[in-house]
Amino acid sequence: MSTLIERLKWRYATKQYDPSKTVPAEKLERILEAVRLTATSSGLQPFELLVVTHKDIREQIKAVSWDQTQVTDCSHLLVFAAWDDITPERVNMMFDLTNEVRGTVNEGWENYRQLLLGILAERGKEANYQAAARQAYIGLGSALIAAAFEEVDTTPMEGFDPAAVDDILGLPARNLRSVVMLPLGYRAAEGDWLVDLQKVRRSRENFITEIK
Amino acid sequence: MSTLIERLKWRYATKQYDPSKTVPAEKLERILEAVRLTATSSGLQPFELLVVTHKDIREQIKAVSWDQTQVTDCSHLLVFAAWDDITPERVNMMFDLTNEVRGTVNEGWENYRQLLLGILAERGKEANYQAAARQAYIGLGSALIAAAFEEVDTTPMEGFDPAAVDDILGLPARNLRSVVMLPLGYRAAEGDWLVDLQKVRRSRENFITEIK
Repeated sequence: MSTLIERLKWRYATKQYDPSKTVPAEKLERILEAVRLTATSSGLQPFELLVVTHKDIREQIKAVSWDQTQVTDCSHLLVFAAWDDITPERVNMMFDLTNEVRGTVNEGWENYRQLLLGILAERGKEANYQAAARQAYIGLGSALIAAAFEEVDTTPMEGFDPAAVDDILGLPARNLRSVVMLPLGYRAAEGDWLVDLQKVRRSRENFITEIK
Repeated sequence: MSTLIERLKWRYATKQYDPSKTVPAEKLERILEAVRLTATSSGLQPFELLVVTHKDIREQIKAVSWDQTQVTDCSHLLVFAAWDDITPERVNMMFDLTNEVRGTVNEGWENYRQLLLGILAERGKEANYQAAARQAYIGLGSALIAAAFEEVDTTPMEGFDPAAVDDILGLPARNLRSVVMLPLGYRAAEGDWLVDLQKVRRSRENFITEIK
């Protein structure tokens, strides 16, 4: 377990990638699988993951991302895209999948489905999107750790124009909205101003409160 | 690395804890440390973590959490509480800490501070809170994995009345708002309806899109 803490200390928000280096397929697959296995509220997985390697599309994304070079220099660009609404169709898709995989129909589960459908309908589209976006960040947490275990560098990135990225990737037609991006790759040998700087975190006593 | 995937497959949202079992201090500390080390946007760490073991307070929280027994039967109850606003004071606290830890004042960093302060002021309190809440979910992702590595069971929990939990924990006075809870502990030998059911996730092709 000290391994996990060591991996978290190793990782940092990479500022300069070596564009000649590619993340091997088996490492990429394990990172994607970690995101796919991530826990989400009511098991809905209300987001999807796009893996962008297309050169021209990455150039377009970079242009709406403050020209951050990580977008084009990284090996693979992950885009976390949340459901723009948690619709009855989507909820039923996941509940039906659960029944199919488990081979049973459970009364408590079906009652919970109806309860949830009622809550979501009342909450409305924008609040449902916001809730879905939060779930995508659990997946981001998984991706950061999974990549660190693979010794793959990452840069969590919110600094982009989400509506523009949505248009570039055709997300509105899929009822998705981009929430956060994560370049994956390998740090450049030179030119990264952050690589040698000390990691900064609030102290335990400023971050954690024990209520005994 | 297969280890991480194995740990993610092992974990599940525990429905019934054994209240006689306590998470050892060294395991708890590693889980908390994983959250503390979690990456956040601009390094702000715009949330805090409360570790609740106080019996009466957990009973009060349970009463506003649909009477879910995990709240009182678990070993430690983690409450992720986001900043209710990302104020200049809080931003400056983190930027000043960074300068202190790194022992330097960097012009690019100071320019970024001013840029960020402008963006946050324009965005307003509620949107800043929503952004902070998303960051807390990255920490949740870390906690879920860290606990799984420690073979500690967890139950990510959004089903509670946040305003009521805030009042119980005195969060308004600290300008914090509860966003998600995470009981930690050990599954009961009997009585957990979910423990033997198969994990359900969308298939890779329904979850991941490659843009080559």
